[in-house]
Amino acid sequence: MAKSILIINGPNLNMLGKRELNIYGATTLEQINNSIQERAIALDLNVICFQSNNEGELVDKLQQAGPGCDGIIINPAAYTHTSVAIRDALAALNKPTIEIHLSNIFKREDFRKHSYISDIAFGVISGLGANGYILALDALKNILES
Amino acid sequence: MAKSILIINGPNLNMLGKRELNIYGATTLEQINNSIQERAIALDLNVICFQSNNEGELVDKLQQAGPGCDGIIINPAAYTHTSVAIRDALAALNKPTIEIHLSNIFKREDFRKHSYISDIAFGVISGLGANGYILALDALKNILES
Amino acid sequence: MAKSILIINGPNLNMLGKRELNIYGATTLEQINNSIQERAIALDLNVICFQSNNEGELVDKLQQAGPGCDGIIINPAAYTHTSVAIRDALAALNKPTIEIHLSNIFKREDFRKHSYISDIAFGVISGLGANGYILALDALKNILES
Amino acid sequence: MAKSILIINGPNLNMLGKRELNIYGATTLEQINNSIQERAIALDLNVICFQSNNEGELVDKLQQAGPGCDGIIINPAAYTHTSVAIRDALAALNKPTIEIHLSNIFKREDFRKHSYISDIAFGVISGLGANGYILALDALKNILES
Amino acid sequence: MAKSILIINGPNLNMLGKRELNIYGATTLEQINNSIQERAIALDLNVICFQSNNEGELVDKLQQAGPGCDGIIINPAAYTHTSVAIRDALAALNKPTIEIHLSNIFKREDFRKHSYISDIAFGVISGLGANGYILALDALKNILES
Amino acid sequence: MAKSILIINGPNLNMLGKRELNIYGATTLEQINNSIQERAIALDLNVICFQSNNEGELVDKLQQAGPGCDGIIINPAAYTHTSVAIRDALAALNKPTIEIHLSNIFKREDFRKHSYISDIAFGVISGLGANGYILALDALKNILES
Amino acid sequence: MAKSILIINGPNLNMLGKRELNIYGATTLEQINNSIQERAIALDLNVICFQSNNEGELVDKLQQAGPGCDGIIINPAAYTHTSVAIRDALAALNKPTIEIHLSNIFKREDFRKHSYISDIAFGVISGLGANGYILALDALKNILES
Amino acid sequence: MAKSILIINGPNLNMLGKRELNIYGATTLEQINNSIQERAIALDLNVICFQSNNEGELVDKLQQAGPGCDGIIINPAAYTHTSVAIRDALAALNKPTIEIHLSNIFKREDFRKHSYISDIAFGVISGLGANGYILALDALKNILES
Amino acid sequence: MAKSILIINGPNLNMLGKRELNIYGATTLEQINNSIQERAIALDLNVICFQSNNEGELVDKLQQAGPGCDGIIINPAAYTHTSVAIRDALAALNKPTIEIHLSNIFKREDFRKHSYISDIAFGVISGLGANGYILALDALKNILES
Amino acid sequence: MAKSILIINGPNLNMLGKRELNIYGATTLEQINNSIQERAIALDLNVICFQSNNEGELVDKLQQAGPGCDGIIINPAAYTHTSVAIRDALAALNKPTIEIHLSNIFKREDFRKHSYISDIAFGVISGLGANGYILALDALKNILES
Amino acid sequence: MAKSILIINGPNLNMLGKRELNIYGATTLEQINNSIQERAIALDLNVICFQSNNEGELVDKLQQAGPGCDGIIINPAAYTHTSVAIRDALAALNKPTIEIHLSNIFKREDFRKHSYISDIAFGVISGLGANGYILALDALKNILES
Amino acid sequence: MAKSILIINGPNLNMLGKRELNIYGATTLEQINNSIQERAIALDLNVICFQSNNEGELVDKLQQAGPGCDGIIINPAAYTHTSVAIRDALAALNKPTIEIHLSNIFKREDFRKHSYISDIAFGVISGLGANGYILALDALKNILES
Repeated sequence: MAKSILIINGPNLNMLGKRELNIYGATTLEQINNSIQERAIALDLNVICFQSNNEGELVDKLQQAGPGCDGIIINPAAYTHTSVAIRDALAALNKPTIEIHLSNIFKREDFRKHSYISDIAFGVISGLGANGYILALDALKNILES
Repeated sequence: MAKSILIINGPNLNMLGKRELNIYGATTLEQINNSIQERAIALDLNVICFQSNNEGELVDKLQQAGPGCDGIIINPAAYTHTSVAIRDALAALNKPTIEIHLSNIFKREDFRKHSYISDIAFGVISGLGANGYILALDALKNILES
Repeated sequence: MAKSILIINGPNLNMLGKRELNIYGATTLEQINNSIQERAIALDLNVICFQSNNEGELVDKLQQAGPGCDGIIINPAAYTHTSVAIRDALAALNKPTIEIHLSNIFKREDFRKHSYISDIAFGVISGLGANGYILALDALKNILES
Repeated sequence: MAKSILIINGPNLNMLGKRELNIYGATTLEQINNSIQERAIALDLNVICFQSNNEGELVDKLQQAGPGCDGIIINPAAYTHTSVAIRDALAALNKPTIEIHLSNIFKREDFRKHSYISDIAFGVISGLGANGYILALDALKNILES
Repeated sequence: MAKSILIINGPNLNMLGKRELNIYGATTLEQINNSIQERAIALDLNVICFQSNNEGELVDKLQQAGPGCDGIIINPAAYTHTSVAIRDALAALNKPTIEIHLSNIFKREDFRKHSYISDIAFGVISGLGANGYILALDALKNILES
Repeated sequence: MAKSILIINGPNLNMLGKRELNIYGATTLEQINNSIQERAIALDLNVICFQSNNEGELVDKLQQAGPGCDGIIINPAAYTHTSVAIRDALAALNKPTIEIHLSNIFKREDFRKHSYISDIAFGVISGLGANGYILALDALKNILES
Repeated sequence: MAKSILIINGPNLNMLGKRELNIYGATTLEQINNSIQERAIALDLNVICFQSNNEGELVDKLQQAGPGCDGIIINPAAYTHTSVAIRDALAALNKPTIEIHLSNIFKREDFRKHSYISDIAFGVISGLGANGYILALDALKNILES
Repeated sequence: MAKSILIINGPNLNMLGKRELNIYGATTLEQINNSIQERAIALDLNVICFQSNNEGELVDKLQQAGPGCDGIIINPAAYTHTSVAIRDALAALNKPTIEIHLSNIFKREDFRKHSYISDIAFGVISGLGANGYILALDALKNILES
Repeated sequence: MAKSILIINGPNLNMLGKRELNIYGATTLEQINNSIQERAIALDLNVICFQSNNEGELVDKLQQAGPGCDGIIINPAAYTHTSVAIRDALAALNKPTIEIHLSNIFKREDFRKHSYISDIAFGVISGLGANGYILALDALKNILES
Repeated sequence: MAKSILIINGPNLNMLGKRELNIYGATTLEQINNSIQERAIALDLNVICFQSNNEGELVDKLQQAGPGCDGIIINPAAYTHTSVAIRDALAALNKPTIEIHLSNIFKREDFRKHSYISDIAFGVISGLGANGYILALDALKNILES
Repeated sequence: MAKSILIINGPNLNMLGKRELNIYGATTLEQINNSIQERAIALDLNVICFQSNNEGELVDKLQQAGPGCDGIIINPAAYTHTSVAIRDALAALNKPTIEIHLSNIFKREDFRKHSYISDIAFGVISGLGANGYILALDALKNILES
Repeated sequence: MAKSILIINGPNLNMLGKRELNIYGATTLEQINNSIQERAIALDLNVICFQSNNEGELVDKLQQAGPGCDGIIINPAAYTHTSVAIRDALAALNKPTIEIHLSNIFKREDFRKHSYISDIAFGVISGLGANGYILALDALKNILES
């Protein structure tokens, strides 16, 4: 049976392709989600995509949708650096999780160099743009099969 | 007249007894709340129990239910380490408050050693599991009577 | 045509004038908003006032109302010190923004000395009470005209 | 058979109720010990109470009386922040240990925020005054029975 | 009787409008002082303006002119970050003081983020250019009347 | 014409699959290189693979082979945390570079959390094992085409 | 009636004049005590001199002799930098206390620059050798008379 | 022949006895100087007293009057914490120097705990008020005779 | 004549072989002392062995027995990290001193990485168990002969 | 036409050759200035030499003489480490500036390792004695010609 | 069969006995190696001695000769403080390893106090000169037999 | 007889004039070496120029060529910040050494502000480009003659 992947996007990612195109590119979150769906079909994976600007709603979603999924891709955006609540929700799920960042967070402000998620994630992909989601799907496929 | 105690539980505590049983034990939050109610009756105290994964909702609740209560027991969970908003809401209430943690936070990651709540709380109980709520009730009873 | 200013107030500011009067004064947020409206009319500015205790709702509001406004006045309160999400939402808008604080945050706890907003704001006004909003309006008027 | 609890009090606690009443209250250590004895009887526990101003004597006592007891309550007072020797003596005993502090150490000088004991203790109770010993007894009873 | 305001400007501010126009604007200190005088008349305030590149002379001036004034506006410029002597002179005067900075110091080098003045000032205005002096005058007027 | 990718492996990676299999897996570097070659053919890319335990030789190789390649994949291993020389050699080349780590370096010793390479790399992939090289190739293909 | 001064000397001061003469001079503690007695008579003060190498004994002495004295001179020697217990014993006494050091501790190892005593002492004299005790007596006389 | 002592007072000390009497006492600098002169006569010492708010003038004075004196008493006030120039001027003179502070600087803001002078001074007297100058004179007399 | 070696053991070492055998091994302190005596005879050295849990007693012993010995072996145990008093006592003796630790302190808690003794010791042996004492004796023999 | 170089010397440099000859050599500032003049003639440069112990006067001089010069050599001495005012004055001039130090500041106290000037200077020469001025002149000649 | 020990010496140790005799003694590395060989024969051990100034060559040697040996003695010299590559090579071998230093590194520059090797070594011997190698051989013999 | 100078260049300096011309200029290392030779002849000095990307080879060269030379000019490039081995090799030689950097390292990344070489060098020249080598030669000539 097809494995199921939960894809979580944090605050301000709903604005992708609408503002700061020079930093994040012109692709909208909807377009990214479409590409993800396409690749998921090719990889025989089911995906659920969720975005919220609200830390509590992201925790709620992880609690509700997490137990039924086989792997997680999370771009916690700003909450990467400030949310112990999301960390705790992920740790409780204990599923293979890939943390991704569209931009290379190591090139930016110092406070973006610390992630509350990285040390409980399986792996991290940073700086590879919207393609990062596709690579994370490929990686999860690989992990779930081995 | 019976005194009234507000009991606030932070993010992921709704999952107690459902996951990570080895860390937090098999007791659910509902069972904890029942034990609290039992002890409250024995101590002639009224209790209101509230849990949310959402920092803003916890602040809302403190603003709404706080003024009418005589004491507060708060397990801020992950928000212990990140929420100035909850700290400010508690400080504005200025009621005797006991901060509790199920696990001993001093045995865990370094970032859990700092609490935004402890220095404005009346007292702190850490590491004594679900029993910590009962001890906190006993302590508040003692404080409110002296 | 009259310029439009978005005024954002963070957590616990809805309690102004209701508690801790000795610190924040007896003026309620409603009274402050009325004074702001008065001055806005005098300056030929439109203002939208919004308050929430919820980080995510503040981000939502900035995303929704921000693009249509010409300037922003934000009192992030507790989120000043903890919210990268609000910072990112403001940075994406790229409008002249004035950060204000009712109390002088430099006289308070050490953790209040760091702001995630100041280095992306146009200017900062701290410690001048409710009058700070009026001064910020004056300042934005001046900025928008030059 | 009744379980046995060793209660260790560190430096200057012999002066309780004799000086700085505004900080530590008017109860003397003797009165506290009497209350502890009373509660111990009610809980069917034996208690041994020991106080010394001397780090070495506290280590000696832990070595001598520790192996025969089932649990430990320790208020290390000033040695909380400076004694690795007491930490090592406790760690070698490997009995359930509750660290207590009469005052809330998180409200005091910065150097009181670090404890050499907390991360090897079972739990910590801080700021609940002489009642903290009673709560610790209750907690140990609970721990020893589960 | 009209209140009297002492306006103190620190090192290099005499060069305003003469160099680094892109950072500090084209307005000279003389022009700023003229605007201040104009506004002071409108607000029924007397102002004394003083500038020096010399830390000791700034202390001298505060000692001499400070006691006779009702409020102080100070732009300590480079001495913001290095002068305990000016801090001590201000603290001894104990008059309502507003610290202003033309540029937003939070956008600049790290060492500019610490001010020896802010925690003893009544309020701080940063980043609002020459208009900051006018706003500070308005604010002092407001403070002196309340 | 097919693009050319330089793949650089740092110290101890020649021992992959020969020791510490539980950490790094049983795949040898030779097997990884074979998989890389396979994928490279599928992607119409040429790859040159190089490994050395010697910081100076890695710099030499980057200087010699770097100018003729279109992109770089580097697993600097231990030199990630200590080599400014490799950083400088990469910076001088100014080609799209992906830094990869087999294990998730954020789960390991503190000193492994700092990389001298990340802030000059295009992107970073960490924790995805030997598959990380394949994902990096895919990513470079994507980058070189856009 | 003559005032009474308690003089406390910490570890290794019993060896004065017996070793490391180049650092601490050739005067023995006995000779210092004799000079102190002489000056005390001249100033109409009673003095009690006590030395111990043992932190606990120093706390004991402060508890026993402290309440009956009017002022304290303490040279905590090595315990200056490590003893919260002595600090707490002194703070509980709340008598005018002068901390002295024979050598100038600011010229020595970094760890000697922090004192647990200075911020609760009335004053500090450092580096003036055995004469420091005489100056401290003079100072206490002056304090007790004003 | 009588020895000569240079007494240097730093910024704001000219205001002694005129402001902040609760902190620094009601004695003026002139009165202190008179007491110093009296004691100097008794000790057969010549004294030169100098005060300035200006770091450069203090350096000038040390250069001019320093070589002809046998010892120095310096109360650098605010410059204690910020002036390497005064440190260098003192170090070049290489005369026995006593640093004094009227208030106990260890009880005040953290930045007052560091002195640029202490580690090049012979000794330090802190917190003993105006009497500190007299004690310093006594100490220098003692040093110059031994 | 045979040289004399003082062997000092700090707190909790009297419990060796009685608890925590997995960390410190099953050898008791008495057995270690016997081995030391044996090797001492072979090396024509006299040894005096002393253990105390009490910092002050360790200082006393160093003062009394130290001057008559030719070298010192010290295992300060917990006091390694907290005792300036023992450091000062050792420094005053100025004899060749070898610091030993049974376990490798660099593999343990961070606070065990700092020793107040190492920089005044001749050499340090860490992690070699009870054999460390024998090696230290051999080393001292070698030092005393060269 | 000959280029013009402003040479600025900070506090205590007027004492060169008069004190501390072992550190700074026996050459006086006058002799250094003469050598500079000689070399300047050989290089067809005009030089203006200025020394002051006063931070404000150094800023004044930079403001007055700076705009008319083509390059600057500055030995800020003690102000290197403490003066943001001099930094700002230099930054405003925006002329090629060489910072020099007679002694090698990296061999001295830790606080001398930070310079407020270096990151806005063109280059830095440290430790080469009075010859450093000549080398700086040569360097400026080279810079002004290229 | 005789056990085999690999002895690794890091950079500049080939110069032993040729320069800085006052620090490292007059014994050459060749003489040390001869003494080691002698003792090895007495202990029935085989030893391989290797020295290089090159980090990469040291890693190569550990990879090549490490697997065949039963224990390792390493004096990493300067690479102690900078080489993660050598650490990783040692960790991969997982053989009992003793780290030695000729001089007592705790008496030297601060940067020499951190070792990348100590926490993965079995034990550490520091400050005992060339004799340290002999003691390390003895220790390894002891370890391999137990 | 002509003095001999060893000139050591660290990693990536062989690429000078070939890449990053905007930072390091268009001059190649060969051209720099030619200019150095020219000036050496003029100054009657012999020079040996050596470059390597390899830390170990740089140490080897210092060991081999260092003893025969009278002074050293070293541009350690990236190894400035990471090589204790080169520091130790230089310290062992104990020849007058000038450290140079082409670019002003104080204007670059924070990690470039620390040098392992500066505090053992005679002097440092930073930011003066290829001309820095010529100035260093002049300086060494001056040092060797005085």
